[in-house]
Amino acid sequence: MKAYTELERRFRRLSALSDAASMLHWDSAVHMPAAAAPFRAEQLAELKLVRHEILTADDMPDMIGEAGAETAGDPWRAANVAEMGRLHVHAGAVEPDLVAALTKASSACEMIWREARPANDFAAVEAALGEVVGLIRRMAEAKADALDCSPYDALVDQYEPGARIERIEALFDDLAGFLPDFLERVLERQAAEKPLLPLVGPFPVEAQRALAHRLMERLGFEFERGRLDVSLHPFCGGVPDDIRITTRYDEDDFAQALMGVIHETGHALYEMGLPEDWRRQPVGTSRGMALHESQSLLFEMQACRGAEFMAFAAPLMREAFGGDGPAWRADNIHRHYTRVARSLIRVDADEVTYPLHVILRTRLERAIIGGDLAIADLPGAWRDAMRELVGIAPDDDTDGCLQDIHWFDGIFGYFPTYTMGALAAAQIYAAAKVAVPEIPEAISQGDFAPLLAWLRANLHQKASSATTDELLVATTGVPLGATAFEAHLGARYLGAAAA
Amino acid sequence: MKAYTELERRFRRLSALSDAASMLHWDSAVHMPAAAAPFRAEQLAELKLVRHEILTADDMPDMIGEAGAETAGDPWRAANVAEMGRLHVHAGAVEPDLVAALTKASSACEMIWREARPANDFAAVEAALGEVVGLIRRMAEAKADALDCSPYDALVDQYEPGARIERIEALFDDLAGFLPDFLERVLERQAAEKPLLPLVGPFPVEAQRALAHRLMERLGFEFERGRLDVSLHPFCGGVPDDIRITTRYDEDDFAQALMGVIHETGHALYEMGLPEDWRRQPVGTSRGMALHESQSLLFEMQACRGAEFMAFAAPLMREAFGGDGPAWRADNIHRHYTRVARSLIRVDADEVTYPLHVILRTRLERAIIGGDLAIADLPGAWRDAMRELVGIAPDDDTDGCLQDIHWFDGIFGYFPTYTMGALAAAQIYAAAKVAVPEIPEAISQGDFAPLLAWLRANLHQKASSATTDELLVATTGVPLGATAFEAHLGARYLGAAAA
Repeated sequence: MKAYTELERRFRRLSALSDAASMLHWDSAVHMPAAAAPFRAEQLAELKLVRHEILTADDMPDMIGEAGAETAGDPWRAANVAEMGRLHVHAGAVEPDLVAALTKASSACEMIWREARPANDFAAVEAALGEVVGLIRRMAEAKADALDCSPYDALVDQYEPGARIERIEALFDDLAGFLPDFLERVLERQAAEKPLLPLVGPFPVEAQRALAHRLMERLGFEFERGRLDVSLHPFCGGVPDDIRITTRYDEDDFAQALMGVIHETGHALYEMGLPEDWRRQPVGTSRGMALHESQSLLFEMQACRGAEFMAFAAPLMREAFGGDGPAWRADNIHRHYTRVARSLIRVDADEVTYPLHVILRTRLERAIIGGDLAIADLPGAWRDAMRELVGIAPDDDTDGCLQDIHWFDGIFGYFPTYTMGALAAAQIYAAAKVAVPEIPEAISQGDFAPLLAWLRANLHQKASSATTDELLVATTGVPLGATAFEAHLGARYLGAAAA
Repeated sequence: MKAYTELERRFRRLSALSDAASMLHWDSAVHMPAAAAPFRAEQLAELKLVRHEILTADDMPDMIGEAGAETAGDPWRAANVAEMGRLHVHAGAVEPDLVAALTKASSACEMIWREARPANDFAAVEAALGEVVGLIRRMAEAKADALDCSPYDALVDQYEPGARIERIEALFDDLAGFLPDFLERVLERQAAEKPLLPLVGPFPVEAQRALAHRLMERLGFEFERGRLDVSLHPFCGGVPDDIRITTRYDEDDFAQALMGVIHETGHALYEMGLPEDWRRQPVGTSRGMALHESQSLLFEMQACRGAEFMAFAAPLMREAFGGDGPAWRADNIHRHYTRVARSLIRVDADEVTYPLHVILRTRLERAIIGGDLAIADLPGAWRDAMRELVGIAPDDDTDGCLQDIHWFDGIFGYFPTYTMGALAAAQIYAAAKVAVPEIPEAISQGDFAPLLAWLRANLHQKASSATTDELLVATTGVPLGATAFEAHLGARYLGAAAA
């Protein structure tokens, strides 16, 4: 075990360094004064460089080979070596100069985008985006060679190891066939229902924060190793022993922050549930972004937009905001939380239309990386795809192809994981309810322990010891598919009773 | 300039890594959940190790030698190389194993101390402290060899480069001769004055925070590159482009937090005023802890406990807390801020008795490191020295030798810098008023710009381009001495009119 032991030591170092970077990222979003951004960027770049140096040391390929032989027959250690190999390949495939150029170009492009978006000025950012795409393509090609897959696959593989576009596209084509008609029927049905009673604020920030805190505790968030703070763009950051989630409060609408907090708590619970014995080793980290998103959506969309949760949460909401009367009854609140509409903005989309936004982005970014879509043609292609998939199109680029930060920040290959996560969430939640039938009743009492215990044992504790599909087959009987998701939507939005 | 250029590159990396560590330290004091402490410690240890590896690379001595030749005649670059050499010597003198053992022993000892102090149980921590001292001695001896000085000097040199105990002791003997009689006379005089009118709270935290914020801005703190937060032990952390100061509020007493904030703002202004062109190079960092403390004390003790500042600040205090009547007049508030008393606790001491606490600690820690004082005899030696220097002695060790974290955390050689800073503050402020006579009048209007401009030009912008004494000679005409400090005390506490 000589090589393996040395690799464990090195990856423990790498883990400490990426943990440090993770906390600094959190700080930049939550506390850092704006003028410090370039200096923080330098700190993060240095941490990246040190990590890169350790990951690509000359003796790594030999050590990984030896460690593979040493650990044969020991599933977790062998899986750990496999993950080490994957990280080494991703790091080693790309020259440090290209990484640096990409970091610089993305940062410059993102800064231009911050002004171009509100100004509806795609032309202003077109050249910078072109430069980012050129570098991303070079990186994707280098990684594709090393991973023996297509360039776009290589990008997706960074976020969801092993995922390949052919499978993703088959799933997305299924959804793209199902959703538009389904959406039409849901909209007709909701239009025919009695009007929604408005929930009228203001909802003081402190009351929202206290309620969020209370629900987080119910869900299983451990405040002795985590925090809830405020940032412009909500996220789950930090490290498994110190999870930092953030939200943003709107005094006119408490629902968005509250569901946002539940979403991030789902991410947090996954991290907090990773196996302690493997902390700071690659095999002990979360499996990938699809499964990560499945945990946030399982709580946000599956468990906490259902009638059971509303039965529990509505009295707490009334108490928090002094709500009274029929508008504050669980059924009316539940209708607010399951309202469906065609919309232009992905992050505001409901669970029925959200996948359509993701399919659009996946198709376009694949075309961009493949060289089939010129940057200059992006605004038009966006509008065409919106019309085809969602049924509406924006008048401008602000609410069109300029709306998401991802591409302008050099992130390609990430979008599909949102919807893969939504599919996985439905599949996993359905399996959980079959395995532990008392889950819904417990949730109606505000008791998430049965659900969390099942997730911990079946997913969180497995960390990266198996692939996403292996984990899904083990927990749900089948690999990732759209069936459970479509069944869930059918039951909730077109079922006899709201689910 | 080949070697010099390469060294600049390496020290820029080192700076980014220590900046990252600095932000993580701030986070541990302000936000981190307690359970995350061991993991944060691992992150910080890793950053330290990476720094150590870069600093002690085999080719460093040659490179520093070559760079010295390359930069001869270029004062800033030459000074930069000299600082690089100093950092290399400090790092290279000590084996990584010893550093790791010391970190571990200090951390363990500090944890025992946290319980032992409130329990008044010196025996409980005696062995752990003995272990820390044993390791500190080994480190001190290794550094003493490398620096060609005594082991205790080598410890002081870590915090105040070039300082040697002989000079410090001469200054401290001067003070130890002057202060006890002086203190007696001040106490007699204050006892004979009419009674102080109490400032009665409560003083809401939010009002204290707003007032602190307002005064920080007046002093010159730039909130676009810094923050004020809350922590148990106030400090100034962060990096020059992102300074994080903290305080702790007491609703029954606003004076302590306010003066604490002014103290930390003094530290912050020094960091914020360091030369931008040399940021992230050793020569561009603060000179040492004595000069750092001089900047905090210059604002807290010299500028902001004077009658001029009170004339400006008293109306703001009345406004902030709704204060009214004679108790809230500037002269009564000023008397509160200049009250002198014999006390057991260093951090609560006034500026007259504070040096006596420091002299005591300096004598004892020097005896400990020199092997002239056994750990077991520390409690008794503490009481004897308190009786001799301050004129009172504690009944227990809680308020005696257990009161400060320093030794239990492995920090020896730091204490003298507090009083060296107080002496320097008096010396610098006196020189500033001679050079720019309008400073006091400006302060009475809340205008700190003339003082700050002079400090920036004469000290902050000089960074580490010269030694502390060279900087003091250039700005005040003489090296560090006790004359200005004693004159300041005489004028403020025994002068015809309060100064």
